[in-house]
Amino acid sequence: MKSMSEKVEHSPKMQTLYELVAELTDLSHIMAVLGWDQQVVMPPGGAEERGLQLAALGKIMHQKFATDEVGQLIADLEAEVGDLYAETDEARSVKVSKKTYEKQAKVPLRLLMENIQATTMAHEAWVKAKAASDFSIFQPHLEKIVDLRKQYADLFKPYDHIYDPLLDDFEPGMKTADVREIFEKLRPQQVALLQEIAKKEPADNAFIKQHYKDEYQELFGRFVISRFGYDWTRGRLDVAPHPFTTEFGLGDVRITTRYLKEDAGSALFGTMHESGHAMYGQGVPEKYKRHPLGGSASLAIHESQSRLWENIVGRSKEFWSFFYPSFQMLFPDYLANVSLSDFYRGINRVEPSYIRVEADEATYNLHIMLRLEIEIGLMEGTIEVADLPEIWNSKMEDYLGITPPNDAKGVLQDVHWSGGMIGYFPTYALGNLASVQLWDKLLEENPNVPDEIAQGKFDTILGWMREHVHQYGSKYEPQEIMLKATGSKLTPEPYIAYLRKKYSEIYDL
Amino acid sequence: MKSMSEKVEHSPKMQTLYELVAELTDLSHIMAVLGWDQQVVMPPGGAEERGLQLAALGKIMHQKFATDEVGQLIADLEAEVGDLYAETDEARSVKVSKKTYEKQAKVPLRLLMENIQATTMAHEAWVKAKAASDFSIFQPHLEKIVDLRKQYADLFKPYDHIYDPLLDDFEPGMKTADVREIFEKLRPQQVALLQEIAKKEPADNAFIKQHYKDEYQELFGRFVISRFGYDWTRGRLDVAPHPFTTEFGLGDVRITTRYLKEDAGSALFGTMHESGHAMYGQGVPEKYKRHPLGGSASLAIHESQSRLWENIVGRSKEFWSFFYPSFQMLFPDYLANVSLSDFYRGINRVEPSYIRVEADEATYNLHIMLRLEIEIGLMEGTIEVADLPEIWNSKMEDYLGITPPNDAKGVLQDVHWSGGMIGYFPTYALGNLASVQLWDKLLEENPNVPDEIAQGKFDTILGWMREHVHQYGSKYEPQEIMLKATGSKLTPEPYIAYLRKKYSEIYDL
Repeated sequence: MKSMSEKVEHSPKMQTLYELVAELTDLSHIMAVLGWDQQVVMPPGGAEERGLQLAALGKIMHQKFATDEVGQLIADLEAEVGDLYAETDEARSVKVSKKTYEKQAKVPLRLLMENIQATTMAHEAWVKAKAASDFSIFQPHLEKIVDLRKQYADLFKPYDHIYDPLLDDFEPGMKTADVREIFEKLRPQQVALLQEIAKKEPADNAFIKQHYKDEYQELFGRFVISRFGYDWTRGRLDVAPHPFTTEFGLGDVRITTRYLKEDAGSALFGTMHESGHAMYGQGVPEKYKRHPLGGSASLAIHESQSRLWENIVGRSKEFWSFFYPSFQMLFPDYLANVSLSDFYRGINRVEPSYIRVEADEATYNLHIMLRLEIEIGLMEGTIEVADLPEIWNSKMEDYLGITPPNDAKGVLQDVHWSGGMIGYFPTYALGNLASVQLWDKLLEENPNVPDEIAQGKFDTILGWMREHVHQYGSKYEPQEIMLKATGSKLTPEPYIAYLRKKYSEIYDL
Repeated sequence: MKSMSEKVEHSPKMQTLYELVAELTDLSHIMAVLGWDQQVVMPPGGAEERGLQLAALGKIMHQKFATDEVGQLIADLEAEVGDLYAETDEARSVKVSKKTYEKQAKVPLRLLMENIQATTMAHEAWVKAKAASDFSIFQPHLEKIVDLRKQYADLFKPYDHIYDPLLDDFEPGMKTADVREIFEKLRPQQVALLQEIAKKEPADNAFIKQHYKDEYQELFGRFVISRFGYDWTRGRLDVAPHPFTTEFGLGDVRITTRYLKEDAGSALFGTMHESGHAMYGQGVPEKYKRHPLGGSASLAIHESQSRLWENIVGRSKEFWSFFYPSFQMLFPDYLANVSLSDFYRGINRVEPSYIRVEADEATYNLHIMLRLEIEIGLMEGTIEVADLPEIWNSKMEDYLGITPPNDAKGVLQDVHWSGGMIGYFPTYALGNLASVQLWDKLLEENPNVPDEIAQGKFDTILGWMREHVHQYGSKYEPQEIMLKATGSKLTPEPYIAYLRKKYSEIYDL
């Protein structure tokens, strides 16, 4: 059980930090095991004790990390390394650890406990509210959560914007103003594109809205992501009601998917999506095993990887020119008479829809922008929780031209707020933008990649991501990654150009 | 997530103990989750980090429990409750906690670490040695382990016998002298029975030494143990190379089985066996959730439950008179022309064999006695590790009349010693004895039970075990359980009578 990581001489304090983080990494990976088990295999009777197990471990981790000694250690190390933004692993390790420490140590135990309690109750209420499509059941809980999030944000004063500390939890270094600027450029162009497409006849996709045999869906999913480069010796694929990727270390990065009766597209693209997340986790180098830099740059960078494999690769003509024969072979009942070109158009059908997770590439970001505006309004206090259903529906009409028939298909559709996750949504859209920005650079350097895809070869793509994204773990902030990899910070233009090119061709705009 | 346990007023110190044990129980259940995952689903790449995770958690548990404060708390509580063998839950909780504490606190960290290291290396060596059928590869490691086990035993001086402290780890309160006395009664009678059977023509069992379809094996296993009363809302069945039962709390007690290509009997009886263990775990009352008494009486009592469902029930005529039609339906290729009576004789075929885990009811205990004598000799120093292959083979000839063709099928067959588990084996045989002793009492009180089995009804059996065994958790020591349930301490006579009756009928002795 010897680690393969490089043996480098560190200062005694640096060594102490590395050892502390190694142990905390072990514990957080144990948390991940408990979570995977809970969502994938746990029988219902296990829920109560599992909750207590997670709480016990969470408490131990907090007690080990949020101490004055650790604070002092980090302060000493900050003095020792000087510039936290220096290029060395040491400096960056201190920077990442300092941030994590501050986020943990600044939060009083009272607020932490109140938050756990509030989100536990809010989650239950949200499940009921969604089932009954009745926002009033969820409203008081969301009010409490918004209040707790405001208290949390206030711990990080001074800030430019009250939403900044929340966003920073998911997207280190990113500011509310940055996201707004990006989204303000993006929105009019994406709405304009959508309006042009809306004038055209939508492609038929009835062939995919069917109950494909689960076993063959799995077979195909495994075939595809094996080709992508997902490493089965360090992972596995299981079924979960809400698909996710989880890491128990560099050697065990698992994905999940779901086989829906009414839509074979869910597993088809979901499995590719999760494999993108997982290949990022598998691509972090051995030297960052149990290390402060052993994570990822941010959720948006993570999402750039999942979206790249799901959409840019997985919904491309080249991809299907290689894979469609195999796919047709498995599902002749639905596909025998569907041409490759009709199939390609069908899986790229654009259509305003109520539900974010079902949205196509052309409409997805609009769902996110709507949520961002609401979250900012809630935090600023310019939007009241009580008014959310109305605001939601009116924004849906503005952006997508449709009004949800009820709250279950509207404001209640997402789980995030019930878990206190305000500040998370923007990372989905930022990830879309990042995926194309990275892709353009990759293509510029490797113009042959589309041909390779058409031959079922993906090693250039994965190799490029390994080199420009994965190998850095959490060493760099998302904007640094973008700058290093593409020469520019995150910007919406490539994404808009990508969408316009793709859909102009499909819809003859 | 409110616990359903009774709200009783405890002294502040008692309350402190209960809270400490509750947290440690959570942590030990987390260990169990990590172990299940490791054995059932973990990809090979996860091994290194999983080892570190287990070690990190083990260290935390040791640090939380093996402290002077806990020692003082237990000493104070001992003074508070007086007689540790009193009938109250408080007294027994202190007794159980004291024992656990002493076992942990007496072991110096050096010995603990040396033991972890030695068994890790010994396990690797054993795997190689077994594969090469070469004892010399394993010999130095076993010598080290025996040495460490001697050092461990010496921490518990004064003892009547150096093997006592080892045995006590698995069978609380049981002495080497007790086991020897029991085995000395048992051995001649079991050998005599075996010799009588050896003169008869063995029943044909070729029909079960086949590759039955895994999916149908699982179907049948699930059908049977559902009937037994295994609670699926608090458990699940998976596949593992070395089947086991594990508990993540009262609400999640999982079993595993394996479907062998060359022997359908392995899963058939193995699944019933594990369900017996699991129903014991599921039968511990809610009030002992996260409680010092929330375990089991001992490994032998545990084994009495698994053996009861596997052998006394699962290999009985009545059982198969109910289940054989379903079983025949699933596997007509092998069973269409096998009569119920031939089937029954076949699955109860007696035959001296090299491998313990494949042994039938009439020979199984002889495998155990051989191991016990060797373990005692190793600990006393009257047997040298170097001589083990020879001693093993000569004892096999004495007891079973056969000599293993090689060490893989002889002294190297079991994993236990490589893990430092000396003192474990006797519990298997004691469990066999206990199963029949409990069964006889159950039958005496419920003479209708065989008829119920023939109707596929098992609630009287499970109800009786719940009442006389499961409901006590780890409150009583194994001999107390036997005394309360049957009016007598553990004794071999019922088992011998059971074997003689069963095989006299089958073999017409």
